[in-house]
Amino acid sequence: MTDKPIAGNMLIAQSGGPSMVINQSLVGAIVEAKKHACIKKIYGARHGIKGIMDEKLIDLRKESPATLEAVAQTPSSALGSVRRKPTPEDCATIFQVLKKYEIRYFFYIGGNDSAETTFIISEEAKKASFELKCFHIAKTIDNDLRENDHTPGFGSAARFVAMAVMGDDLDNRALPGVKIDVIMGRHAGFLTAASALARVEPDDGPHLIYLPERPFSLDRFVADVKGVCDKLGRCVVCVSEGISDESGEAIAAKFIKEKDSHGNAQLSGSGALGDLLAGEIKTKANISRVRADTFGYLQRSFPAIVSKADAREARQVGVEAVKHAVREECGSIAIKRKPGKKYQVYFECVPLKNVAKETRHVPPEFINEAGNDVTQAFLDYARPIVGDLPKIGHFKGAKVSTIA
Amino acid sequence: MTDKPIAGNMLIAQSGGPSMVINQSLVGAIVEAKKHACIKKIYGARHGIKGIMDEKLIDLRKESPATLEAVAQTPSSALGSVRRKPTPEDCATIFQVLKKYEIRYFFYIGGNDSAETTFIISEEAKKASFELKCFHIAKTIDNDLRENDHTPGFGSAARFVAMAVMGDDLDNRALPGVKIDVIMGRHAGFLTAASALARVEPDDGPHLIYLPERPFSLDRFVADVKGVCDKLGRCVVCVSEGISDESGEAIAAKFIKEKDSHGNAQLSGSGALGDLLAGEIKTKANISRVRADTFGYLQRSFPAIVSKADAREARQVGVEAVKHAVREECGSIAIKRKPGKKYQVYFECVPLKNVAKETRHVPPEFINEAGNDVTQAFLDYARPIVGDLPKIGHFKGAKVSTIA
Repeated sequence: MTDKPIAGNMLIAQSGGPSMVINQSLVGAIVEAKKHACIKKIYGARHGIKGIMDEKLIDLRKESPATLEAVAQTPSSALGSVRRKPTPEDCATIFQVLKKYEIRYFFYIGGNDSAETTFIISEEAKKASFELKCFHIAKTIDNDLRENDHTPGFGSAARFVAMAVMGDDLDNRALPGVKIDVIMGRHAGFLTAASALARVEPDDGPHLIYLPERPFSLDRFVADVKGVCDKLGRCVVCVSEGISDESGEAIAAKFIKEKDSHGNAQLSGSGALGDLLAGEIKTKANISRVRADTFGYLQRSFPAIVSKADAREARQVGVEAVKHAVREECGSIAIKRKPGKKYQVYFECVPLKNVAKETRHVPPEFINEAGNDVTQAFLDYARPIVGDLPKIGHFKGAKVSTIA
Repeated sequence: MTDKPIAGNMLIAQSGGPSMVINQSLVGAIVEAKKHACIKKIYGARHGIKGIMDEKLIDLRKESPATLEAVAQTPSSALGSVRRKPTPEDCATIFQVLKKYEIRYFFYIGGNDSAETTFIISEEAKKASFELKCFHIAKTIDNDLRENDHTPGFGSAARFVAMAVMGDDLDNRALPGVKIDVIMGRHAGFLTAASALARVEPDDGPHLIYLPERPFSLDRFVADVKGVCDKLGRCVVCVSEGISDESGEAIAAKFIKEKDSHGNAQLSGSGALGDLLAGEIKTKANISRVRADTFGYLQRSFPAIVSKADAREARQVGVEAVKHAVREECGSIAIKRKPGKKYQVYFECVPLKNVAKETRHVPPEFINEAGNDVTQAFLDYARPIVGDLPKIGHFKGAKVSTIA
């Protein structure tokens, strides 16, 4: 803690997969920064750490309030993003650039990898005895950051998923069959779990939900789908892209070779897993109408259907990061939930290393015993984050007596 | 023409792929039917002609106005749908059921196959000298019905596509690469063409659009994508699921074996085409970040993003069908557009056989010469049908001078 905040420039950047509200956090931080005299220039780096290393910076003080508000409402990362795990040499380079531009306030918006990057840079600064306030601003549709009740971006992506499955289940009622929806989530199944919010009537889908937190067996999957079809004559299944077998190998990875720079198999942007699962049902369950959709990038970038709570909280996380930066050294702003029936959150500054690297998983109390559905506790948790969903109408359907 | 409309019962059913506004047409017809004393019972058949043959009917007079309005706002076919091309024997059976239930007013909501079914049933009735007013109520997201300026269902599906591509292009700006979006449309490319509405800025995607109306060459596709990437460093491509080679064979059909009851290859509900095209770019254009999404069933059933014009017109087509049925023998209600700058439509009753069987294609003046984009004429045509799209904000991006 310093008595008086250090004067200097600010730099902010975005990293990892975009979300529908990541620009709310960005604009929240910019607008708040303008209120603090100790913050001089406000720079934005293009495409995360890549833009810092290449010195591709823009002057965010020159953006009008109207532009800032328009950007805040726009999905995806307005500064551009990057998927790059910096090497120790990269971190040294980044730190040199920050020093050169007299940056004293550094904000990095992203997931756990971004928190790790922020932490490494803060360590570099310490080693060099350069006072640099490093803040991570949480963002991930996967909802997999430790310390957080939930993360900015999750609520809106979950809202897309719930709405999509609502419509898809109605579609599958009209033309009955088996429908498999593959939803983002490599290690954490929160987004797939959110599909359960689509249910209103007792026979509404999704009828089966598989998360990466439980081992996935193709045989049990086929048996589960058969069971639902025997009862309802149709079945909507939601699976996380990251579902894995007993040994921990991703089902999709058996078929997908491409790896990203973090060494992870590329699960999104491919229909392979859905097609594989559909093939299993067709051949082993002897059901003819089987379809699979992979929601893909739409679930993180579709415009104009954001969760209001998510937009509001994403904005506030950006604001809080700046407020804390002018008081404390480094950290990450976590969203915490107040106990009680009414949905209320508060924001807490937590150490960077508490959020970095490791991910959070869907806790056991949110998954049913059979491992093919979520619990009421999950629904209660997720509903206020996602907000009210469209109303669905059904006919009462008074049957007409058959004429002999 | 009869001087006095015949008294009898009404039966209405839905067929083919659902849409976001097919229930508007259904409810429009029900509400209008209640105003005509000559229409006694109002029956709905479950799952189209299947429900008629199985005599699975519900009493639509028993549905409250509130339920009717809730159903009207709900995507997908509330009565259930079917994909079944009736045989001559099926048509004879259907006609017998209609006679038994004293149906004098028959309405079938669907695409060109449904118009054909309606036409065959009307011929059966004529042969038997049974006065039966057969009406087809147009519905297809493909926008491929003859006689129509556009069809109910298209505007909302096109709106989904335009919004999805808007978000997806922003996503691809943030993490640049090649993104391929596969959009519904077997023989008609209207829905894929609608992706062009996503563009606001000159460098906005989609940068390339391929429709089934022009032969698709994998080599030219690779060259086109390379060209865009050389210029912008990124490329969003929209292709119709039905793109075909010079010989007329669907690109996807080379890899997909399943056929529906109309003998068509199953193009939707599979990610195969997108994965194939992505593979071509990866190997032949030497671009590493290539992703493909297949929009699938979401584009016809996603709730709460309907085009207002589409919802209004779909409702009116149902109303007009009943109004015409109490005056004329048989027909289909077509949407026509008034000439002039202001968007205005009117409704015309056209002969069933003018709409049946054959489909309409994207006219040449809507496709650019190179066959990889749409024209301004298409944008002018489609914009009022789809309605205003979300506003997108971009930073002005004043560059910061590099410090030496």
